[in-house]
Amino acid sequence: MASVFGGVEGGGTHSKAMLVAADGKILAQTEGPSSNHWLVGVDKCIETINDMVQRAKMEAGLDPGTPLCSLGMSLSGGEQKDAIDRLIVQMRERFPTLSQHYFITTDAVGAMATASKLGGVVLISGTGSNCKLVNPDGSQVGCGGWGHMMGDEGSAFWIAHLGVKTVFDAKDNLVAPPHDVTHVRKAMEEYFQVSDLMGMLPHLYRNFQKPHFAGFCKKLAEGAEAGDALCQYVFTQAGRILAKHVEAVLPSAQAPLLSSDLGLPILCEGSVWKSWELLKPGFTEVLDKVAASDKFKGRFRGYSLLILQHSSALGGASLGAQSMGLSIALDYKANTSVFYRHTLNSSQ
Amino acid sequence: MASVFGGVEGGGTHSKAMLVAADGKILAQTEGPSSNHWLVGVDKCIETINDMVQRAKMEAGLDPGTPLCSLGMSLSGGEQKDAIDRLIVQMRERFPTLSQHYFITTDAVGAMATASKLGGVVLISGTGSNCKLVNPDGSQVGCGGWGHMMGDEGSAFWIAHLGVKTVFDAKDNLVAPPHDVTHVRKAMEEYFQVSDLMGMLPHLYRNFQKPHFAGFCKKLAEGAEAGDALCQYVFTQAGRILAKHVEAVLPSAQAPLLSSDLGLPILCEGSVWKSWELLKPGFTEVLDKVAASDKFKGRFRGYSLLILQHSSALGGASLGAQSMGLSIALDYKANTSVFYRHTLNSSQ
Repeated sequence: MASVFGGVEGGGTHSKAMLVAADGKILAQTEGPSSNHWLVGVDKCIETINDMVQRAKMEAGLDPGTPLCSLGMSLSGGEQKDAIDRLIVQMRERFPTLSQHYFITTDAVGAMATASKLGGVVLISGTGSNCKLVNPDGSQVGCGGWGHMMGDEGSAFWIAHLGVKTVFDAKDNLVAPPHDVTHVRKAMEEYFQVSDLMGMLPHLYRNFQKPHFAGFCKKLAEGAEAGDALCQYVFTQAGRILAKHVEAVLPSAQAPLLSSDLGLPILCEGSVWKSWELLKPGFTEVLDKVAASDKFKGRFRGYSLLILQHSSALGGASLGAQSMGLSIALDYKANTSVFYRHTLNSSQ
Repeated sequence: MASVFGGVEGGGTHSKAMLVAADGKILAQTEGPSSNHWLVGVDKCIETINDMVQRAKMEAGLDPGTPLCSLGMSLSGGEQKDAIDRLIVQMRERFPTLSQHYFITTDAVGAMATASKLGGVVLISGTGSNCKLVNPDGSQVGCGGWGHMMGDEGSAFWIAHLGVKTVFDAKDNLVAPPHDVTHVRKAMEEYFQVSDLMGMLPHLYRNFQKPHFAGFCKKLAEGAEAGDALCQYVFTQAGRILAKHVEAVLPSAQAPLLSSDLGLPILCEGSVWKSWELLKPGFTEVLDKVAASDKFKGRFRGYSLLILQHSSALGGASLGAQSMGLSIALDYKANTSVFYRHTLNSSQ
């Protein structure tokens, strides 16, 4: 199976696997549950991956007993070298017919490799948030990704928390709310099934479930779309802080990233981007200011927001092949779609 | 034992019990471990209380088989009526010789009852934070006390978190630090025994222990005393937000609280107050502004910061007696000491 490359996208809630030929043709795709090894443990993680890939081999009409040429995995939680090395050792031992070679990278890098050979910024806003700049030479700079206790700014969790905190602070008379809290308070009482602030405490402590708490973000998006000013405000704030992540990594961007036709490519991952129109006022405001600042004047002339049309398993497969000195011919244009394009006016 | 009243101070780390005569004489005092029923469970809570009180009876030369007249308990976690009623029912059942009558209130109210008959503001800043205004007529208004996920502003946890977050944001280039982070970063690496930011993640998630995380506050206090500008900054910020809790409850203060010689009495509880000199610049700045505002001009003329000289078990005992229509003669002046006094200049 010399010319078949495998790729995996491993997320916190579900995973995907893909088999690709050297010419970029997708031979098979399968799905599975979470394979974040921090969440499900190493055993479950590698079993999920093996199961998805072996099913994909059969779907493609290939012999499951013959190892792939390489398996490139783009994993959420794929950050720490020690942990990654251990994963690969155990895969080799337990599943000798899975693949000849292995490669593991983070979800951000796998997504970027699916979208572009040149690099760009990956800006994730799902349950949590994270930002990573990947340069044309492969060097990386990150901002965020520390979880809800030390970051996650602009994520669904953060937006939900900001909405709830605004209600608490208004009730306490600690901070005057920027807009009337009536709608958000009612939506909170409904979503969390509580009748007062005291009732929120189990949701925050004893029974805290980050995905469930973050799920309140969707209710705030609905409120914003229906015209509630406070709901709109929290999304504007999220747009602002997400743009500040881009501002944070921008000084490290190498020239080719800023000079392309699209301007800086920003690959947007995660479900909060479905509410782009709500994020937009804050997001564009911050980057307009950055472009006008002395530091970036004339250098930062525009940006494009992109979403992937294929699973980042494809980028994982490509990086896996590259790690062996081989390559997969990817049609990057077909792998992404531009959903927003902004040309910055940096003249005076 | 018609004329012996018991009091309990139940905290998150340790507890105290006291026996008091109607003339205010303290007959005995004992100590015990945590009796926060949310932390240790109901069984352990009431066993700890029974054990402390029975030991106190013996220490005072009284018969442990004869119930007290009343037992008034000032408990952290003594907020919810249902839970409190359950505690009392179980005490009666398991320990019939403990006391004839029972009364439970919160730590804030018990502390206030130790300091004054008139009421005032209780401002707690220990591991967590909380603020409660108790009016002369007994009515109460609170601000904060929601724990580290939704508040705790100005507490040791909050100060420690602000220090660590400033280091993360500086490293990420997300927010420029107000002062050099070198000292705080080193202190963090030492206290948490980590070599990089990644190493902090277990302290924030898998192995999160709020008291241990909050303990870093002490290192920041040492840094501030040694002259580090960022350490001083986080305490100034804590002083500001603690004062904002007072500002939040101030509109509900009845006239006698504002017109006493001491100005508004603010009873300060918790170990962060040991660093008063560090909190002072931010704290006084905020309340000076409040006094000068149109809303309070001429009404809010000064305040005093007090600490208790006796355990709030004494206030608990007093409230327990009151709940039966009896009273204990307390020498309020001797129960507190004023450690700071501020006269506000609200002319023009």
